[in-house]
Amino acid sequence: MQRNYAKRMDRMKASEIRELLKLTTKPEIISFAGGLPAPELFPVEDIAKVAHDLVLKEGRQLLQYATTEGRLTLRQKIAKRMAEKYGTPGIDPDDILITTGSQQCLDFCGKLFLDPGDVVLCESPSYLGALNAFNAYEPVFKEVPTDEEGIIPEELDKILATTPRVKFIYVIPEFQNPTGVSWTVERRRKFMEVVNKYDLPVFEDDPYGELRYTGKMNPTLKSMDTKGLVSFLGTFSKIFCPGMRLGWIAGPHDIVEKFVTIKQSADLHTSNFDQGIVDAYIDSCDLDAHVEEIKELYGKRLQLILKTMEEEFPEGVTFTRPEGGLFLWVTMPKGVSSLKVFNKCIEMKVAAVIGDAFYPNEKTDRSLRVNYSNMPEDRIIEGIKRMAKAIKAVMAESK
Amino acid sequence: MQRNYAKRMDRMKASEIRELLKLTTKPEIISFAGGLPAPELFPVEDIAKVAHDLVLKEGRQLLQYATTEGRLTLRQKIAKRMAEKYGTPGIDPDDILITTGSQQCLDFCGKLFLDPGDVVLCESPSYLGALNAFNAYEPVFKEVPTDEEGIIPEELDKILATTPRVKFIYVIPEFQNPTGVSWTVERRRKFMEVVNKYDLPVFEDDPYGELRYTGKMNPTLKSMDTKGLVSFLGTFSKIFCPGMRLGWIAGPHDIVEKFVTIKQSADLHTSNFDQGIVDAYIDSCDLDAHVEEIKELYGKRLQLILKTMEEEFPEGVTFTRPEGGLFLWVTMPKGVSSLKVFNKCIEMKVAAVIGDAFYPNEKTDRSLRVNYSNMPEDRIIEGIKRMAKAIKAVMAESK
Repeated sequence: MQRNYAKRMDRMKASEIRELLKLTTKPEIISFAGGLPAPELFPVEDIAKVAHDLVLKEGRQLLQYATTEGRLTLRQKIAKRMAEKYGTPGIDPDDILITTGSQQCLDFCGKLFLDPGDVVLCESPSYLGALNAFNAYEPVFKEVPTDEEGIIPEELDKILATTPRVKFIYVIPEFQNPTGVSWTVERRRKFMEVVNKYDLPVFEDDPYGELRYTGKMNPTLKSMDTKGLVSFLGTFSKIFCPGMRLGWIAGPHDIVEKFVTIKQSADLHTSNFDQGIVDAYIDSCDLDAHVEEIKELYGKRLQLILKTMEEEFPEGVTFTRPEGGLFLWVTMPKGVSSLKVFNKCIEMKVAAVIGDAFYPNEKTDRSLRVNYSNMPEDRIIEGIKRMAKAIKAVMAESK
Repeated sequence: MQRNYAKRMDRMKASEIRELLKLTTKPEIISFAGGLPAPELFPVEDIAKVAHDLVLKEGRQLLQYATTEGRLTLRQKIAKRMAEKYGTPGIDPDDILITTGSQQCLDFCGKLFLDPGDVVLCESPSYLGALNAFNAYEPVFKEVPTDEEGIIPEELDKILATTPRVKFIYVIPEFQNPTGVSWTVERRRKFMEVVNKYDLPVFEDDPYGELRYTGKMNPTLKSMDTKGLVSFLGTFSKIFCPGMRLGWIAGPHDIVEKFVTIKQSADLHTSNFDQGIVDAYIDSCDLDAHVEEIKELYGKRLQLILKTMEEEFPEGVTFTRPEGGLFLWVTMPKGVSSLKVFNKCIEMKVAAVIGDAFYPNEKTDRSLRVNYSNMPEDRIIEGIKRMAKAIKAVMAESK
């Protein structure tokens, strides 16, 4: 049967990159390709007890339809937590909407702002899942150059001065996905000057901000926002668990209000049951202590993977040294194809994500994204050794 | 701050109808306006135990990211249940996608098929939540006339013969929302002839099919589909509980595959936790017995509300006599404004939904939708007495 789908579906086809990603999921492969939390840290026994008690206590409300905005006591806790962790005091819980994971926020950014042909700005590179979400609304992507200090505000200014139909900018200033880079304070300050100059709406995605292992906290863009331009996207996926799909937007009132309207027709509301469980967990358990455990484990894994890369990778290969988050970014020497390295890695039963997945327009064929949160220590060492061997083999061929 | 939103947002504004709906939620009002299941029937103790045991048993998988398609064992159960309850044997679980409520399916119908200006066909009247979901994709709505036997296939044929850009038809053949009407078998047969003639994709929404209190089961359109045109939208909201947001599409392979692509960027996957709980509940408890309890209670409430309407409503007021579902449809005599009745009802502290909410184009100002599943028996009697008084008062004024 031939179907007459919407035009957007031409852009949402199974891509070459999706095919490459499939290769990384074979069971015999040591895969640094995912972005999964370490399941051995999920507070399984606490959640079992919390779920049991909560259903008995308030099952009739918990299992019923609920308001689109989300559970009020959970929104209050998010406002409080954001004040403590992200330097944003005074957020009204009514300016927070609970979403079905923060991925849903990304879809709503597109739905709220984008007509076909409108321009979305993002870092170069940027998060694949966000690019895919926006892509459904048929925008033009413009990539803003970045370096090891984060986005380059002067380049953003140039783009804004010369580009019509820019609707918003999407950024991940802290422990960026895919690079692991955190913007310096200076860059953040200058970035806010530029967006203020153009009144540009900003979506600040911060899934990993609490997972800092070394160094000191950076101010969020949201905490520096004086004009009502920044919407902050948060999630419980990395500090609690992702299986429940609990995220949020904390933004200017008018944007959150529109998100509520959009959510009402998208899925009515986020699982009331899951919202209740995280709310009750925070009440009766110690989320901060749980986050400390996560940081200890991931921090150790990060140090180990960096050390192993330093020891094993051949000269000319560079990689970022993140202070937190889940990812780092490996770049090949000039003339060495990361696609070839990827294919050789698969042959040697190790995987990462091909870097070009994270560029909406320009392909560089230079990088790989490597995740370290979901991998036991012995497998990190073995996996990076294999990856080093694969890189060396391709470098030898490329001479 | 002036924002430059997408064009679709002009159509998604807070409407007059939304304002009217707000009036129905005041606590002092006996409200027949909602569509909520009776929470006193939620199997609270069973769910508490199931949740507890399941988290202990498989917490590490349950709380982790999961596949977009949904939990395989749950999809298998849905295929089996559809074969038993909906006459659709042999559905491949791979042709089922679990969604965040069936509302999400409605959003995806629009996302998959609609470019601005494309035509959506629906019954006149049709489900408000579906109309809102499609509306985000800027279609033109064409309403297909209906009567007490369901949709009128000859009218559908006429529309299809003369209307370009029709992308799909959305229908609720069983216990329709808002009218409570079930299409006769003959109408279903003729409807399928017409859609076969035009190769028209059909979305058959069936949230209440299992809730039949009298009469015998009708064949689903899905069970009559020989050409791969019908996608069936199902939900656990009315037979289990709505707070978890669990629905599904069972459709032709290519449509489900596209839904999976769309879902990946919309919210990655439906709560893995909630999917696990309903799956384990079906394994260890008796869902069929639970549905029988629901049917017994709602069936009693339906008979009571019909009897009370017969006794209390003045001559000239008509109402449907559904054999199942959650709603019935009250129509005023000619010349009596349902908006005036609605306002008088609010004055008298009783509420229903104004019928015009369910027409995307034509307004009739004649009807009200009345829900009876969520109302104790004494309140049904008191509420309908008040409504009768309100109708009589407006009729007296309208002479």
